[in-house]
Amino acid sequence: MSALRLEVAATDGAARAGTVRTARGSYPTPAFMPGGTRGAVKALDSIDLETVGAQVVLGNTYHLMLRPGAATVARLGGLHRFTGWTGHALTDSGGYQVHSLRPSVDDDGVTFASVYDGTRLRLTPESAVEAQGLIGADIQMVLDVCATLPAELNVLRVAVDRTAQWAERARRHHRRLEARPEGQALFGIVQGGTDPLLRAESAQRTVALEFDGYGIGGLSVGEPRPALLEALAATVPHLPADRPRYLMGVGDPVGLIEAVALGVDQFDCVAPTRMARHGSVLTRTGKLNLRNAVHANDDAPLDAECRCLTCSRWSRGYLRHLLGVGEPTAWRLVSIHNLTFVLDLMTEARTAIVEQRFDALRAAVADVWGPNNP
Amino acid sequence: MSALRLEVAATDGAARAGTVRTARGSYPTPAFMPGGTRGAVKALDSIDLETVGAQVVLGNTYHLMLRPGAATVARLGGLHRFTGWTGHALTDSGGYQVHSLRPSVDDDGVTFASVYDGTRLRLTPESAVEAQGLIGADIQMVLDVCATLPAELNVLRVAVDRTAQWAERARRHHRRLEARPEGQALFGIVQGGTDPLLRAESAQRTVALEFDGYGIGGLSVGEPRPALLEALAATVPHLPADRPRYLMGVGDPVGLIEAVALGVDQFDCVAPTRMARHGSVLTRTGKLNLRNAVHANDDAPLDAECRCLTCSRWSRGYLRHLLGVGEPTAWRLVSIHNLTFVLDLMTEARTAIVEQRFDALRAAVADVWGPNNP
Repeated sequence: MSALRLEVAATDGAARAGTVRTARGSYPTPAFMPGGTRGAVKALDSIDLETVGAQVVLGNTYHLMLRPGAATVARLGGLHRFTGWTGHALTDSGGYQVHSLRPSVDDDGVTFASVYDGTRLRLTPESAVEAQGLIGADIQMVLDVCATLPAELNVLRVAVDRTAQWAERARRHHRRLEARPEGQALFGIVQGGTDPLLRAESAQRTVALEFDGYGIGGLSVGEPRPALLEALAATVPHLPADRPRYLMGVGDPVGLIEAVALGVDQFDCVAPTRMARHGSVLTRTGKLNLRNAVHANDDAPLDAECRCLTCSRWSRGYLRHLLGVGEPTAWRLVSIHNLTFVLDLMTEARTAIVEQRFDALRAAVADVWGPNNP
Repeated sequence: MSALRLEVAATDGAARAGTVRTARGSYPTPAFMPGGTRGAVKALDSIDLETVGAQVVLGNTYHLMLRPGAATVARLGGLHRFTGWTGHALTDSGGYQVHSLRPSVDDDGVTFASVYDGTRLRLTPESAVEAQGLIGADIQMVLDVCATLPAELNVLRVAVDRTAQWAERARRHHRRLEARPEGQALFGIVQGGTDPLLRAESAQRTVALEFDGYGIGGLSVGEPRPALLEALAATVPHLPADRPRYLMGVGDPVGLIEAVALGVDQFDCVAPTRMARHGSVLTRTGKLNLRNAVHANDDAPLDAECRCLTCSRWSRGYLRHLLGVGEPTAWRLVSIHNLTFVLDLMTEARTAIVEQRFDALRAAVADVWGPNNP
């Protein structure tokens, strides 16, 4: 009995358009998940996320455990009620922070220092399952070991072995845990850096544990784009067809489309909203730097073809002004635009796959964005 | 020929419910104007302002002249198109910054240093009219001299005389200026500190110049509340009945209601939104400090009787969490609530005046908020 399943509606080469069925309902793939790190996508609320067309939002277990605490999220009704979000939600496990915060890792778990006050936060495969059970997203991720790249082979080997051992512990604990919501899914995570053999091994060991879906982790952490795609190509063939494949931490147009071409179904990344707050705007003609003086007197919208709230009412000149003087309104409005761009790209990809013209979309995206934009 | 007129729909004692007719349309009074200092009410957009029910928004000439510049606002279509705002707009003149920034003032005008880079900004009665003509709000204010209180009588005397001389220059220049929008109104400003005789004199000298409406300035700048109300009582009887009376810089519940009781029609203040960003919440049972730990696990809305977007979906516990970790989403959501509270209070005041029960509302507000809350 699986909490979650992917139905493939159409394929075009290795690319797939699907529907993920969950206890809550369903969401179409390819899917991009905005990053709601601390219970909100920065500067946005859950109505904004509905408006841009997000279907799945990511919450960050490490941050939510520190503030307000997993038990507090549970007392306030779980992540959905807490954030006022009616769509799907997924929580990461804290594994990404093994890369970004360099905590101490041992065979049994990870010891972090709080980003707020330095206090100790211990995470084990079991406690990560429990915390995510309390937070109560639709999908939780196993605690994994994400190595920063480039890495020596022996570092990757340790990461793969620990990830596999922890995955088994998490799988067992998640099955037994009574505190978690009925129907909450659990995804395993494939590691292995950029080594194709380790990727294949990690995929096989993870799949053997029969997860509801599969994260592909340990990428977009310092390696060149071709190496990422090669590692992805070595991973995906080992994953079952009826489970979602989730490439963690990728959100740029070319990265998304190239990964979809290899058979990936869903993504998360904070880059579109972080870029927005720095004035980097995604448009149908490429990246626009709103801080450039040329936009100061420009009454045009960010992207003339965009359907978003921001493009419906405000000009480049206005948004540039607000960004320049540090008004939070700008962070929100440009984030709404960038998220709409990425979400619409996923919708276009889905349509192109269904209509068997995904290669043309892929070529068009590469044409605008260059073959390997980061 | 006046660009603007107030029609009194009902009075209850000195309190009035009215309709201000302008070249753009009309707005009901008593009216509260949120402060959109630099082209946006902090953390909000113009759709948010529509949603909360704002009818008039204030823009700040000093700040807009520095960034993005009055000419840029004009090139981008004027303040309404620039900010995407379809309601009424009013710009202050920079006179308030004579109090808040302590620039050098001479008989001819004011010399500011830019808050951004220290560069010199010169404002005269004429250039303030021209800048506000370019910015293009529905209503502009004359450049005045706002003295910080308490002040010696000779300081107030100089402020009153300069304000009167500058008002005459502004009136003349505004009549001749071709750059300003057709139908743009000009309000004079009464000064005089807390001295009743100076207030009466300033009111009479200002009214003699026949403005479209009258600001009551130089209050809420350090004096106790009873002194403010006394100065107001000395001013209002000298103002014509068919012109709006605008008390500048007041936005707390008791201050608003007590001023309406004395015959004031409109207000501006950044306090409701600034308080929101610091977790001070206006509710029907008084002020709520969201930073208080008692709210950490509270699933209730900020105010159970509130109609606002924030109260429709999010809890005290969630908003407290977002504020605590510095998420801009909280600034916006709590600002939406506080503005809704103040705007709804103005609507209640209007209804109470029409229904001849304003004294009961006044007593109820004093009962919740104390007689002289700042």
